Amino acid sequence: MGEIGIGIVGGGYMGKAHSVAMAAVGAVFDTALRPRLEMICATSDSSAERYRMAYGFARGTADWRVLVADPQVQAVVIASPQETHRAIAEAAFALGKPVFCEKPLGADLADSRAMVAAARASRCINMVGFNYIRTPASQYARALLAAGEIGQVTWFRGEHTEDFDADPDKPASWRNFGAANGTMGDLAPHMVNAALALIGPIARLNADIATVYTTRPGAEGKQVNDDIGQFMCRFTNGAMGHLSFSRVATGRKMGYQYEVTGTKGAIRFDQEDQNALWLYRADDPPGQRGFRKILTGPEHPDYLPFCQGPGHGTGYQDQIIIEARDFLHAIHTKTPVWPTFDDGMEVNRVIAAAHASHASGTWIDL
Amino acid sequence: MGEIGIGIVGGGYMGKAHSVAMAAVGAVFDTALRPRLEMICATSDSSAERYRMAYGFARGTADWRVLVADPQVQAVVIASPQETHRAIAEAAFALGKPVFCEKPLGADLADSRAMVAAARASRCINMVGFNYIRTPASQYARALLAAGEIGQVTWFRGEHTEDFDADPDKPASWRNFGAANGTMGDLAPHMVNAALALIGPIARLNADIATVYTTRPGAEGKQVNDDIGQFMCRFTNGAMGHLSFSRVATGRKMGYQYEVTGTKGAIRFDQEDQNALWLYRADDPPGQRGFRKILTGPEHPDYLPFCQGPGHGTGYQDQIIIEARDFLHAIHTKTPVWPTFDDGMEVNRVIAAAHASHASGTWIDL
Amino acid sequence: MGEIGIGIVGGGYMGKAHSVAMAAVGAVFDTALRPRLEMICATSDSSAERYRMAYGFARGTADWRVLVADPQVQAVVIASPQETHRAIAEAAFALGKPVFCEKPLGADLADSRAMVAAARASRCINMVGFNYIRTPASQYARALLAAGEIGQVTWFRGEHTEDFDADPDKPASWRNFGAANGTMGDLAPHMVNAALALIGPIARLNADIATVYTTRPGAEGKQVNDDIGQFMCRFTNGAMGHLSFSRVATGRKMGYQYEVTGTKGAIRFDQEDQNALWLYRADDPPGQRGFRKILTGPEHPDYLPFCQGPGHGTGYQDQIIIEARDFLHAIHTKTPVWPTFDDGMEVNRVIAAAHASHASGTWIDL
Amino acid sequence: MGEIGIGIVGGGYMGKAHSVAMAAVGAVFDTALRPRLEMICATSDSSAERYRMAYGFARGTADWRVLVADPQVQAVVIASPQETHRAIAEAAFALGKPVFCEKPLGADLADSRAMVAAARASRCINMVGFNYIRTPASQYARALLAAGEIGQVTWFRGEHTEDFDADPDKPASWRNFGAANGTMGDLAPHMVNAALALIGPIARLNADIATVYTTRPGAEGKQVNDDIGQFMCRFTNGAMGHLSFSRVATGRKMGYQYEVTGTKGAIRFDQEDQNALWLYRADDPPGQRGFRKILTGPEHPDYLPFCQGPGHGTGYQDQIIIEARDFLHAIHTKTPVWPTFDDGMEVNRVIAAAHASHASGTWIDL
Repeated sequence: MGEIGIGIVGGGYMGKAHSVAMAAVGAVFDTALRPRLEMICATSDSSAERYRMAYGFARGTADWRVLVADPQVQAVVIASPQETHRAIAEAAFALGKPVFCEKPLGADLADSRAMVAAARASRCINMVGFNYIRTPASQYARALLAAGEIGQVTWFRGEHTEDFDADPDKPASWRNFGAANGTMGDLAPHMVNAALALIGPIARLNADIATVYTTRPGAEGKQVNDDIGQFMCRFTNGAMGHLSFSRVATGRKMGYQYEVTGTKGAIRFDQEDQNALWLYRADDPPGQRGFRKILTGPEHPDYLPFCQGPGHGTGYQDQIIIEARDFLHAIHTKTPVWPTFDDGMEVNRVIAAAHASHASGTWIDL
Repeated sequence: MGEIGIGIVGGGYMGKAHSVAMAAVGAVFDTALRPRLEMICATSDSSAERYRMAYGFARGTADWRVLVADPQVQAVVIASPQETHRAIAEAAFALGKPVFCEKPLGADLADSRAMVAAARASRCINMVGFNYIRTPASQYARALLAAGEIGQVTWFRGEHTEDFDADPDKPASWRNFGAANGTMGDLAPHMVNAALALIGPIARLNADIATVYTTRPGAEGKQVNDDIGQFMCRFTNGAMGHLSFSRVATGRKMGYQYEVTGTKGAIRFDQEDQNALWLYRADDPPGQRGFRKILTGPEHPDYLPFCQGPGHGTGYQDQIIIEARDFLHAIHTKTPVWPTFDDGMEVNRVIAAAHASHASGTWIDL
Repeated sequence: MGEIGIGIVGGGYMGKAHSVAMAAVGAVFDTALRPRLEMICATSDSSAERYRMAYGFARGTADWRVLVADPQVQAVVIASPQETHRAIAEAAFALGKPVFCEKPLGADLADSRAMVAAARASRCINMVGFNYIRTPASQYARALLAAGEIGQVTWFRGEHTEDFDADPDKPASWRNFGAANGTMGDLAPHMVNAALALIGPIARLNADIATVYTTRPGAEGKQVNDDIGQFMCRFTNGAMGHLSFSRVATGRKMGYQYEVTGTKGAIRFDQEDQNALWLYRADDPPGQRGFRKILTGPEHPDYLPFCQGPGHGTGYQDQIIIEARDFLHAIHTKTPVWPTFDDGMEVNRVIAAAHASHASGTWIDL
Repeated sequence: MGEIGIGIVGGGYMGKAHSVAMAAVGAVFDTALRPRLEMICATSDSSAERYRMAYGFARGTADWRVLVADPQVQAVVIASPQETHRAIAEAAFALGKPVFCEKPLGADLADSRAMVAAARASRCINMVGFNYIRTPASQYARALLAAGEIGQVTWFRGEHTEDFDADPDKPASWRNFGAANGTMGDLAPHMVNAALALIGPIARLNADIATVYTTRPGAEGKQVNDDIGQFMCRFTNGAMGHLSFSRVATGRKMGYQYEVTGTKGAIRFDQEDQNALWLYRADDPPGQRGFRKILTGPEHPDYLPFCQGPGHGTGYQDQIIIEARDFLHAIHTKTPVWPTFDDGMEVNRVIAAAHASHASGTWIDL
C-alpha cells in the first residue's frame, strides 16, 4: 500500500469537498494508494492556514506555484476559479504530476484545448470533475445504455436547473458577470457531460440563450451574464435531443435530470431523488408495464462498499469520494479513467457551439 | 329548461365520447338546455344503426349532409376525420347551427382559416375540443397564472408524448400517412393549445421534426409521416419556451405534461396523474418551501359537482362532459366560450410555423 | 335490448351519483338492459321534484313505499341514510325486485343479517355499493392476487383516511352523532371490504377506536362518535394485517390506500392517484427490481371501453357507472355479481368485532 | 484543537461505517476535538490487522479488553454484536472513558438497565447509535413537532420494513436465531426510537409478532426468530399510534418511514427518499393545500456544511459522520447529547412490552 502526497488548489466549496474526500477515501475503499493531505493553497496566507487546520493538511500556501512545485505534492487537485485552471494544469504537467481539475475544464475552448495538449504531451494522468454523474443511478444508466438494454436510443432530454438566482432582488455576485460564470458556463457543463456520456457525441445543435434579469441590485450599468439556455440537437447516432439549463428555475434545487427513450425501453433520472433510477421495459408482460423505481444498492456501480443493502442512500459527498478513488486508481495503475481532459474539452466544444448557434439563429455542426 | 337536438358526425372513438357526454351532462350539471340525442352519422348505414342503438340516438345516417340538414338537429358535433371538418362546419354554419369541432380544427391552416371565416360570418356558436386542458388541475393552473400567483412567467416547458407507435414492428395504419395524421398534426395541437392558454401567444419559434421509423410492416414504398417533433420558442410576453411531441416515447401513456416557471413560483402538471397540480410558492417560509401536491376538489374549477370532497378524482370522460356543458351553455346564453374556432386556428398557425422552421432551419416569426 | 325502470331512493350525494350513472351506462357499455329513469324519492315533494328535473326522472315522490310499489319501478337503488336501508330492501324483495344498496349494508349487524335473509328468501339480485374498489387498478390487484402473481400473501396494510373533520372548530353535523355515522360506521366499510376482497376472510382482530375531538361547536353535551380507529388482524390464510381509518387525517383527501406483501412480490395502491397500480416482482432481473407504476388502460379490468389507450384516466363517476353496469348485467343474466348482500354483511361483522375488541381490550375471533 | 484517541470494537459493517466517519469528521465539521484512529478490535488477529490497514488505524487487537484498557484509547465505539455491548461498556465506564454504543443498547432490557446504571455511576459521556434518525429531514421533523408547527399530534404511524429475508429459500444465517437478532430485536429499535423522539413516551401498547418462514434451508430443527411485528399504541400525550416492522417486506429496501398527523398539519417521511420531507399545512390558502416536498438543504439541521445549496443530497455515510460529530462535541463540552443510554434503554423497554403484549394478547402499560 503506497502513499501519495496531495495538493489541493482552492479551499472553498469544492476545495473542501475534495479535502474531505481525500481524508475518507482510503478507509472507504481500502485504496492501494493512500492520499496524504500535503498542502492546500488559498488566496491568502491566513485563509490557507485556516483551511489547513480545518481540513487536516500538513502545510498551506497562498501561491499555487509553490504547491505545484513542492516535491511532497505528487498529485494536484484544481478547485480554484475557472480562469486559473489552465496555468495550474500546465505547470503540473510540466513537472510530470497527475492533475484532477474541477469542471469546466477551461474557462473557454481555447484554454481547454491547450490543457488537453499539455496533458497529452506530458502523458500524465488527467481527469475532470463532473461529480453529479457519479451516482450509482447514473452509472447504472450508462451501463444499461451501453448494453443496449433499452434498444436504440431515439430521444434524450436533459436539464440542469436550479433556482439560486431566481429572486430578482438578490444582489449581484461574481456569478452574474463574465461568460464563464453564467448558466451556460457554470451549469450547462454538467448536463452536456451527461448527454455525451449517456448517448454519445452531438452532431449538430440549435440554441437559445437569455438573461432573464438584466438588472439586479449591485449590477447597475454592468452587463449581466446568461440566466437560462436551451438547445435542440441531433446526436451522431441519429437520436434527437434537447437540453436546458437555468439558475432561475424557481422551485428547482438540483434539477439535474434526464430521460432517455429507446426502441425497447426508457430511463428517467432526477438528482433530487438521486438514489433512484426509473426504468421502463417494453418487454414486460402486457398489463404489467410501467416505469419501475429502482433503488440503488450493491448490485449497482459505485455503491458505497460498506452499505450492506440497497436503500441506505448515497449523497453529494460520496460522489466526490468516488472521484478521488478513480483518480488514485488511475495514478496507481497508470491507466486513464473517464472523464479525461479530452472529455472535458468536448463539453467546452458543445457549449461554444451553443453560443455560436444562438448568435446566428441557425444550426451549428460540431 | 329547454331541449336541443344534437347531431354527432362520427361514431368511433371521439363520437362515442361525445355521445356519452351528451347522455350524461344534463344529470351531472342540471343544464338549462338538455341535449336530445337526435342523429348520429357513420360511414355506412349498418354502422350508423349500430352506433344509434349503442349510444341511444333516435336516428342514424351514413350521410353527414342529411344530419346537418335535418331540422331536428339543432347543433352539430364533428368527430370525424380532420379532412372532413371544414365542409361539415361550413354546411352547418350556412344553416345557422352551432358547431363543436374536435381538434385539430382544420386539416391544415387554410381549412382552419376558412372555418373561422364561416363561423364569423354566421355568428353561430363555435367551439373546438381540446379535451385534456379541461381537467380541474389545468383549469386551476390557468386561473393561477391569470391571477399572477407565480409572478411573471419566465419559462414554459410542455410535452405531449405517448408510445402507441413505439414498437417498430407495429404495422402501419392510417395514422402513419398524411401530414395531418403525424405527431405534429395529431398530438401537437393539444400541447400547443395548452401553451397558448396558459402563457399566451407565441412570438417566434425554431423547430425540429423527424420520422424515427421510416419503414414499418405495410408501409413499404410509402412516405411515413412524423413520429417526433420539438420547438424552442419565445412568447410575446418574453418568456422562453420549449414544446415536444412524440408517439414513440416508450413508456409514456399520456405524457401531456407541462411546467411553468415564474418569478414568484412554479407550476407542474402531468396528465398521467391528472387529479394533482403541483405548486411552488417562493414566499413560503424558509425551510418549508417545496412543490406541494394539490389534489383537485370542489375549490377548483370544473370539478364534478356531485363529488363532495377532493380526491374523488375525475377522468377522461369527465373532460368531455365539461365540454358538452360549456357548448350547451354557450348556445343557451348566446355567448362564445373558450376555445373558439379562432383559438383552434391559432394552434394550426403555430404548427404551420413549426413545419416552416424545420424546413428552413431558422427561427420563424408568427 | 330490453329496458328496465329504475327507482332511486335518495336524491343527495349518492343518489345523484347513481342517477348520473344510470343516465350514462347504456351509451358507455351498450348494455343489454337499458335503464329508464322512472322515479326518484326524496325527503319532500319539492326536493323530489327538483331532483326529478335535474336528473331526468319521469316521476318523483316523497314516499319510498310508493317508489318501491310502483309497477314501472322494476329495480331499486337505495341511496338513503343507513337506518332506512333495511326496510326499503325488505319491501323491494317482498315484491321480487332487485336491489342495489349503498354501503354500509345495514345500520348495524342485525339489520344486515335481516337484509341478507330477505334477499335469500326472495332469490332476487342483490348488490352492495362499495364504489372505490371499482377502479381498474384495484380490480387488477384482485386479479393479480387471485392468480398468485405475488405468491403467498404475508402482510396487508390498508387505510381509509380523510380530513373532512380535521378542523376542531368545524361545527358538528349529523356525521358526528350516532354509531353508524362515525368513522367505523362510515369510512371503515370501504377498506374492510377491500381487505376481504383482496386477501380473504379475517380470522381474528384486535382494535382500538377513539374520538379525537370530544367537543365541537354545536355538540355541547352530546356524545360525539368516533373519529379514528385501527385494528391488527390475522386473515384465515395466515397473513398478518393492519387497517386504520380516520376522518381527522389532516392532509388526506382520499386516503384509500393499501399495500400487499407476498412471497414473490408486492402491490401498492393509493386512491389519490387512482389510475396507477404499483407492482413489485421479485423475479425481475437483479439490479432491475423496483416497484413499477402501471398506468391502468385497456389491458386492465373495468377500464372505460371508449378510451383507446392507457393513461386517459378514470374517475369517481366511472366507478359508479361500473356498478350500474354490473347491476344491470346481474339482473339481465339472473346471476349474482360481487359484492352481494352477503359480502356487505361480512363487512358489518368485522366492524362489529372491532367494536367488541376495543371494548374488551382483547383479540376477537370472527 | 485537541486530539482524542478512538478505539472501535468491531470491524465489520458498522465498525467500518464508524471508522470512515472518524476519518472524515474533522475535515467535514472542523471539530474542536480531532479523532485519532488508535485501535480497532476484531475477532482474530488477522482480521484486526486487515481492518487496521484498510481503515487506517494505528493498531489492531483481537481482545476488546486490551482496546478498552489501552491508555491511548480515550473513547470507545462499540460496533460488535449485541450480547457483547454490556461488558464492553461497563469496562470502559469503569475506566472513565466515554462510550458510543451501536443500537440496540443491550441485548435485552436487563443488559440495558445495567448499562444505564454503569453510565450514570461513571458520569461518562454515553450515546447510542440510531443512525437513520440523523437525516436533516428527520431532524427537521423533530424541530417542527417540538415547535408545534402542525398543532397537537393525534396520530403517528411508523414502519421499518426491509426485504433481505423475503426469499423463503434464502439459507438461514445468525440473523434467524436468537431473540435479539429477530425483527423486533434488530429492526424495531430504529422506528421505536423515532416514535419516541418525534412524539414522546408511549403509555401503552398492544402487539402482534410472527415468524413468517418457520423453516429455511439450514434451519432444520431450530427455532427461527420473528420476521414481522406490529403494535398499536397510545402515547402519553394522547395520540394514537401504530408501528410495524418486517424483514420480509418484499420490495422494501429501506422502508423506514413515518407519518404524523396533527391538528394543524401533517408530516410524512420515507428513508428511501431521505432528502425530502413532506409537510402539509392546514393554514395554506384554500385551493392551495397539499403536501409539499421539501428538499433538505442548508436551512435544515445537520445538513452537510460544504454543500452550498439544497438538493445536493446526504446519504448513509453522512448520518454516521453526524453521530461522530455529536459524540466528539459531547466529550469536548462534557455535555450529554441525545440519544443517551437512557434513550436507548427506553427503546428496549418498549420492545420488551411488545413481547409481553403479544404473549398475553392484551394491552400492556409502560
